[in-house]
Amino acid sequence: MDALRLVAIDGGFDLTLDGRLIVRHRPDSPALFVGRGRPDIAMVRGNFDISDRLDERIALRHATFDGARIALAAHADAPPLLYLDLDGATLRPVATDPALNRFWLRIVAEPDEQLWGAGEQLSYFGLRGRRFPLWTSEPGVGRDKASAITFQADVAGQGGGDYWNTNYPQPTWLSSRRYALHVETTAYSAFDFRDPAFHEIEAWAIPEAIEWFAADRFVDLVGQLSTRFGRPPRLPDWAFSGAILGLKDGERSFARMEAIIAAGAAVTGLWCEDWVGLRVTSFGKRLFWDWTANEARYPDLRARIAALATRGIRFLGYVNPYLAIDGGLYQEALAAGHLALKLDADEPYLVDFGEFDCGIVDFTSPAAADWFAERVIGQEMLDLGLAGWMADFGEYLPTDVRLANGLDGMLAHNAWPTIWAEINARAVAARGQTGEAVFFMRAGFTGVSRYCPLLWAGDQSVDFSRHDGIGTVIRAALSSGLLGNAYHHSDLGGYTSLFGNVRTPGLMMRWSELSAFSPVMRSHEGNRPDENLQLDGDPQVLDHFARMSRIHAALAPYVATLCDEAVATGLPLQRPLFLHHEADPNAFAVDDAFLYGRDLLVAPVLEADRIDWPVYLPAGAEWVHLWSGEAFGGGTRVTIGATLGAPPVFFRADSAMRGLFAEISDL
Amino acid sequence: MDALRLVAIDGGFDLTLDGRLIVRHRPDSPALFVGRGRPDIAMVRGNFDISDRLDERIALRHATFDGARIALAAHADAPPLLYLDLDGATLRPVATDPALNRFWLRIVAEPDEQLWGAGEQLSYFGLRGRRFPLWTSEPGVGRDKASAITFQADVAGQGGGDYWNTNYPQPTWLSSRRYALHVETTAYSAFDFRDPAFHEIEAWAIPEAIEWFAADRFVDLVGQLSTRFGRPPRLPDWAFSGAILGLKDGERSFARMEAIIAAGAAVTGLWCEDWVGLRVTSFGKRLFWDWTANEARYPDLRARIAALATRGIRFLGYVNPYLAIDGGLYQEALAAGHLALKLDADEPYLVDFGEFDCGIVDFTSPAAADWFAERVIGQEMLDLGLAGWMADFGEYLPTDVRLANGLDGMLAHNAWPTIWAEINARAVAARGQTGEAVFFMRAGFTGVSRYCPLLWAGDQSVDFSRHDGIGTVIRAALSSGLLGNAYHHSDLGGYTSLFGNVRTPGLMMRWSELSAFSPVMRSHEGNRPDENLQLDGDPQVLDHFARMSRIHAALAPYVATLCDEAVATGLPLQRPLFLHHEADPNAFAVDDAFLYGRDLLVAPVLEADRIDWPVYLPAGAEWVHLWSGEAFGGGTRVTIGATLGAPPVFFRADSAMRGLFAEISDL
Repeated sequence: MDALRLVAIDGGFDLTLDGRLIVRHRPDSPALFVGRGRPDIAMVRGNFDISDRLDERIALRHATFDGARIALAAHADAPPLLYLDLDGATLRPVATDPALNRFWLRIVAEPDEQLWGAGEQLSYFGLRGRRFPLWTSEPGVGRDKASAITFQADVAGQGGGDYWNTNYPQPTWLSSRRYALHVETTAYSAFDFRDPAFHEIEAWAIPEAIEWFAADRFVDLVGQLSTRFGRPPRLPDWAFSGAILGLKDGERSFARMEAIIAAGAAVTGLWCEDWVGLRVTSFGKRLFWDWTANEARYPDLRARIAALATRGIRFLGYVNPYLAIDGGLYQEALAAGHLALKLDADEPYLVDFGEFDCGIVDFTSPAAADWFAERVIGQEMLDLGLAGWMADFGEYLPTDVRLANGLDGMLAHNAWPTIWAEINARAVAARGQTGEAVFFMRAGFTGVSRYCPLLWAGDQSVDFSRHDGIGTVIRAALSSGLLGNAYHHSDLGGYTSLFGNVRTPGLMMRWSELSAFSPVMRSHEGNRPDENLQLDGDPQVLDHFARMSRIHAALAPYVATLCDEAVATGLPLQRPLFLHHEADPNAFAVDDAFLYGRDLLVAPVLEADRIDWPVYLPAGAEWVHLWSGEAFGGGTRVTIGATLGAPPVFFRADSAMRGLFAEISDL
Repeated sequence: MDALRLVAIDGGFDLTLDGRLIVRHRPDSPALFVGRGRPDIAMVRGNFDISDRLDERIALRHATFDGARIALAAHADAPPLLYLDLDGATLRPVATDPALNRFWLRIVAEPDEQLWGAGEQLSYFGLRGRRFPLWTSEPGVGRDKASAITFQADVAGQGGGDYWNTNYPQPTWLSSRRYALHVETTAYSAFDFRDPAFHEIEAWAIPEAIEWFAADRFVDLVGQLSTRFGRPPRLPDWAFSGAILGLKDGERSFARMEAIIAAGAAVTGLWCEDWVGLRVTSFGKRLFWDWTANEARYPDLRARIAALATRGIRFLGYVNPYLAIDGGLYQEALAAGHLALKLDADEPYLVDFGEFDCGIVDFTSPAAADWFAERVIGQEMLDLGLAGWMADFGEYLPTDVRLANGLDGMLAHNAWPTIWAEINARAVAARGQTGEAVFFMRAGFTGVSRYCPLLWAGDQSVDFSRHDGIGTVIRAALSSGLLGNAYHHSDLGGYTSLFGNVRTPGLMMRWSELSAFSPVMRSHEGNRPDENLQLDGDPQVLDHFARMSRIHAALAPYVATLCDEAVATGLPLQRPLFLHHEADPNAFAVDDAFLYGRDLLVAPVLEADRIDWPVYLPAGAEWVHLWSGEAFGGGTRVTIGATLGAPPVFFRADSAMRGLFAEISDL
């Protein structure tokens, strides 16, 4: 790839990348600014209220050049405040004054340009026209300030979110101009895409680098990003060859699993997050955060796991980076000095998780990180026989915490999810289980794809709502997939049930359909199992799930090729339509359907009580409807019959796997 | 008063005022900043959503001095961006570059300093610890983002407000350091009182001036401000010698008034805002905005008014600065070119007032202003015999309007309420009725006190809620009263009834008590009269109102002395306790009670179903409970019996009017 090209012009400069004008800097319309600000930060259970008190924002109007270094000053007689060192396709800003802690860079925008990325975005796949703060956090119970659930959650304790809140932000975007841009910083940052003339990057630190990527084709651009951020290990065959049942019913979980298998379900995993025991709070049944098998709730678990393994069924658990203060591991960590401390006292920083407090294992201490990887994940989990787990949280690191390596909480916060992923990956690698044990995370940040084998889309509401329901899963898969995260899935049935919002049979069945055509089909009982419909709580829902799990299993040979492709090329399994149809302008706006590999087009039904569904079939292929075999030309909009059990799925007529797809239609 | 004193020191400077350190400017902690920004403004029916896209904020670290002029630059080698000209106690900023449209000034804060003012503030009388944007607008239906009413109003169309929203903001504060500060600008501005070390003034223009006032006593400070901003004409005796009944029932209003009088009420005014006819919308019964008597609804109104006058009862009407497009005056104004235009077309700018559109009379055109004063207020209202009116609105001027004198909408918006007041005052003066005809306004800005005889507290909700109910009236009276507005009152019973929120008898009675001990006791039927209790809708409520109106009338001799005092000294009738008790530190935090003149202390009951009420009696006087005659020493907190009909009121034992007060206790 070409490097950035610098052209001094009219007292300023242009930066171009393979012919694209990327930065246009002039004295009267500067592209670079630095400043100073003081953040206001309030955190309540992973929900952050953040604002800036901005003291200065200095336009760097005057540029001078010394080889590959640009020196920028407020004006001709002022000393330089910022250097920009050009290094290939990378720009490295260097501030001359350590008090400067704000940075803005404007990137040239084109009128019809479209943008994607910014991590795992739940509300909007296309980013143009909005501002996206990038700070890992709870997504919020309700992410729509006009929804009653969001309002109630806000009033109940700052619990509501907004369209940009996500567990996994990342300061990286892809442009329809066929370049990508990455800001290398873990500081609080924001992408502002509201202006017609420029995209503005804001960072609450001088970034280490701004990196560009360019290609003629989107697939190559995505490949470059996956190389840059790291590709996950190949998903093992067991993870996509049947459903993973999420049950948290103690020992009864085994019998319920057998009944579901007896109903015809293809099952390759049993996920019991309550393997550590339960704690009941007003939010619902939660887990006891002391990462040791709970003998009372799961007697003789080691033998149970071994017995399941002989049948090809893996057992999965749960862990997160916190330690409940009433658990044994907390005491162990405390005694060994593995906990993060308060800024102003030599005592552990405790985080309120809603009716219980936890210590934070200080992963910046090598000894603490090793302890968690070996002692907790290694000995307590992998050695017990766990084949995978939800590696929950990672978004709650407070900003006023004292860390062993001296890292400022404002910089550590966004870094934490990736550090958390690395510790899980390290533990797995130490047991030689990379590519075999599968942990899944909702939190993320730059580079999480290098360590985390599988994302999950976080805590959807148990409904079809625009900003919180089932549809957010698709946008999450598409956005995160462009940044190196090949594998994505969600809680089948949704998770958050509050304020009287509960699952319907229709929702469960539509989610089964979505999950069947996703890399991993994993169910969840939700935060309030007793108040919500479960897969085995309704014969029609169970029968439908069983069939969908068989379809999911039948797709395994195809999915295996996609996994191989992901390793080889970095392409995600779920892809926006334009990735393989970039000549079709209509393909770009589709954010409610995805290509599952190159050959399947999946358009899940995202509304209640529908019997048909509109689908756009992109140009450049002929598309065969999976259930009817009817063929459609590309570049057409169709409204396809979509009763329960017949989710809108199409395959390319020229697919090498068309025989497999045709068989599936008979299942 | 002394002038500002400039002392160059440590490469910066200090400004002191009568020994007070006011501004401390140093190169490493500058007090002055200029910048450039682009506002985002969305207006829906007087509710504004405003944010700034800030391009630059330049710290002016380097100061040089030339006599009374300070020149400020970003640093020593940079050209000056701002001059500050010292002129007595006034600072006049002058920018060297017309592109600079943002200004910040930091004023030294002391740890225990308290602040008041900022116009008519409804939620907080003490301003420290919060930020207050200053932009005239609808206060919002609900001004508490945690209230269900605010949420519903927001969802229904951006209709909810926040703690700082007010019809009448003003960039003026008083400090417990016994100085006051005024920013002379009509631009969008904000006072930020969150920082412990400084108060920050923000303005979206370079202000014309920053003015200081200082005195040893608060009463003198308030007197200075009333001189600066202008004192209203003395309130005529009729306005405070009995109740003004608000009825909007067409001709039936007269019979209802007679029945209320027959029930024992003292009445000196009948206010029929529906004199122009009705228009029914989803918000409730509204008025037909064509400022001409409606013969069908009020047959023979001129004779009716004359007949009432012989009995000492005035008739009052309603007007606002807009003209409904389906009215005759709109056509008249349109033909004469009196309407404000769109920016981008030679056609009238129409404002959506909720199910009907209106033109805006362009008061920056002398001919249009004269037309409205003479043709509308003069001929249609005063010549008909109206003795007063609600001069409604003034807050809705859009920012993207084209005005005759070329004034930018961003600068005209805040100026509009005072211009509107001046036109009303001009019309009254032209008929020789100044000090006799009384119009009352909710909108305001700097200088409104010079023209407007009487403020009203805007549209309270019909409840006791913290940020919207009856209690907001007291904070509104106290804050606006410090800035020259001697006379204040409210809609007895509250106004806004939406989302099922309706009046209770208890609320009506408590509001009657508050209104009786206020300069003007005026009732209102509210926005939805048919769904809400009216004064004549419940015998107990009516009887209680009648008695309170007699008490109000009986107070007239005392209130007359207060009106004289207001003319002579600028002191408002309703005053914070500290105004006359500045030696008592406990007096400063009281914001739910007021001194009514020097001699009465009124502490209205602001909660439902109370039979007693806590009251703080300030030191420096002995206080006699109005109803029981019991005397209390000053500097004490008492919980006083306060059943309905016995609102907590105390008089000074040394009052020259104590005989009058003793008589009232028998009413």
